[in-house]
Amino acid sequence: MRVGEKGEFGLIADLRRWLDPEAGGMIRGAGDDAAVFEARGGRRFAYTADAMVEGVHFDPAYTPWHALGYKALAVNLSDLAAMGGGGPSYALVVLGLREDIEVEALEEVYRGMRDCGAGFSCAVVGGDIVASPERMFISVSLVGALAGDGFLARDGARPGQAVAVTGTLGDSILGLKELMSGKGNDTHCARRHLYPEPRMREGRAALEAGASAAIDVSDGLLRDLGHICDESGVGARVLVEDIPISAEARRVARDMGLDPVEAAVAGGEDYELVVVADGEVMGRLAATCALSVIGEIVPGEGVELVDRGGRRVTVGGSGYEHFKETGG
Amino acid sequence: MRVGEKGEFGLIADLRRWLDPEAGGMIRGAGDDAAVFEARGGRRFAYTADAMVEGVHFDPAYTPWHALGYKALAVNLSDLAAMGGGGPSYALVVLGLREDIEVEALEEVYRGMRDCGAGFSCAVVGGDIVASPERMFISVSLVGALAGDGFLARDGARPGQAVAVTGTLGDSILGLKELMSGKGNDTHCARRHLYPEPRMREGRAALEAGASAAIDVSDGLLRDLGHICDESGVGARVLVEDIPISAEARRVARDMGLDPVEAAVAGGEDYELVVVADGEVMGRLAATCALSVIGEIVPGEGVELVDRGGRRVTVGGSGYEHFKETGG
Repeated sequence: MRVGEKGEFGLIADLRRWLDPEAGGMIRGAGDDAAVFEARGGRRFAYTADAMVEGVHFDPAYTPWHALGYKALAVNLSDLAAMGGGGPSYALVVLGLREDIEVEALEEVYRGMRDCGAGFSCAVVGGDIVASPERMFISVSLVGALAGDGFLARDGARPGQAVAVTGTLGDSILGLKELMSGKGNDTHCARRHLYPEPRMREGRAALEAGASAAIDVSDGLLRDLGHICDESGVGARVLVEDIPISAEARRVARDMGLDPVEAAVAGGEDYELVVVADGEVMGRLAATCALSVIGEIVPGEGVELVDRGGRRVTVGGSGYEHFKETGG
Repeated sequence: MRVGEKGEFGLIADLRRWLDPEAGGMIRGAGDDAAVFEARGGRRFAYTADAMVEGVHFDPAYTPWHALGYKALAVNLSDLAAMGGGGPSYALVVLGLREDIEVEALEEVYRGMRDCGAGFSCAVVGGDIVASPERMFISVSLVGALAGDGFLARDGARPGQAVAVTGTLGDSILGLKELMSGKGNDTHCARRHLYPEPRMREGRAALEAGASAAIDVSDGLLRDLGHICDESGVGARVLVEDIPISAEARRVARDMGLDPVEAAVAGGEDYELVVVADGEVMGRLAATCALSVIGEIVPGEGVELVDRGGRRVTVGGSGYEHFKETGG
């Protein structure tokens, strides 16, 4: 079977079988935002890697080079944030380069990475340059010390716990649509797409408060909360009216004839954190972090969107659609 | 100026200025085989990344998938070896995939990585999969604990010290030429090209014996020893007759009408270690490792090849050429 037939999630399931989860010092292997290993002496590290490919993850036509560097590092820092990691971290950058890229553009890429790292005690310390004739790519790896033994895994969610999200959702995909339609890169939503903010402080606070699980929103809320459900063996119910959507996202969606709820639950690349915790823990956490409680963990499997009337909601291309009463 | 005009070494010089060498915990930044950082508690780690791009670094027409995985990890382990690192290490793998690659091929790539890592306490613990429409790429990063505070840098060479190399040189480029000319992948030289052996034990032994500098041979002896000279502010003189060349490499070179000395000094990808040490240290090291002393560090700059008669030697496309008497 070919890669294109198998699809990303089928492949990832295969990869997990091909890795070595029993290796000495491994605390957490594949299947989370980052791997966790323990060095001799007991110190634990989160370790993650993410790549961006030209024409697949970014388009130089509307992605400033500085933003490319910033985002390439930010998406990795976001994985550390989702583990609750908050210590110093170190990044290596492998650049695949077309011959016709300007050296000044690369300097901007590095400036973007440094500008991102500076706020989070993250240093870009080296890497490799290789030729990549058709498409540029940027592959970043990041290793960061965990504060202690604990970390926020994906498999810790239990029925009855609350589900919350930092910030707002949907801005990034709507910003991408603005960028693609030539609206420039200085709108609120375009900036949110180009310069995602890794939620390092929130991840650390969630870990310290005693949260049970977390993930960052890269594939979209439904899919990413779905990963928590799959790994934890539970389901989740999300109240659609409680999903935080910015006024700007609502305006862009209206102007473009798009559904802001669909953008928020399926758009992805928001790099906000989804946090699962007992109600009491979530209450304490909400006192120090801007969080929106959007639902709860339930027995079963999968993520269900419901409205205040208890009706199940599904999102489609042109808006959301009520198709089933679930009572309540 | 464009990347293609600037060239690899010009770009690397730029990159070093764009990185942040003053970051907290950084012991060694760009300009060595690996970066070195120190975690809270004092433990030091070597951290490196290398990528291989289809059609640039490997050709699936003559590179078995298993060998691709093995080599992608081995070249990173070789960087740790050149730092003297020998503890457990952890690898992340980013795969850029064409849609038409067979899933079974990827399983072989991972099997090759596991087979390589198993011998060196290295575990492949995760990574990322991305689409790369035209060319597959494999980008590996590796973090490994150093045994203590020390490591083998490139800048420690001093005049009067001896220069030695592990194993034999030139096999890899001659093996590549065999592979490209359809001679199969089971010859001695082809296996050396496809399955380079990271010299972890030798690197560790060199560090423990008190060696002053090391590098692995990826670009070719002249260029890599040249990096040691540049970083240390010294020159080197290499005795051409003392360069270790295998009988198989000599036979392949003869059969193909190639110069085995040129293959040995300019071929690259041998992943042997060049070690610089005081004569006494080198003597002790040679008792436990298979090493060939090939020359000495001298004042000045650059690497000079000489023969036993003291004549300067230069290598060209069709063999080496004496062009200048240097006395002696």
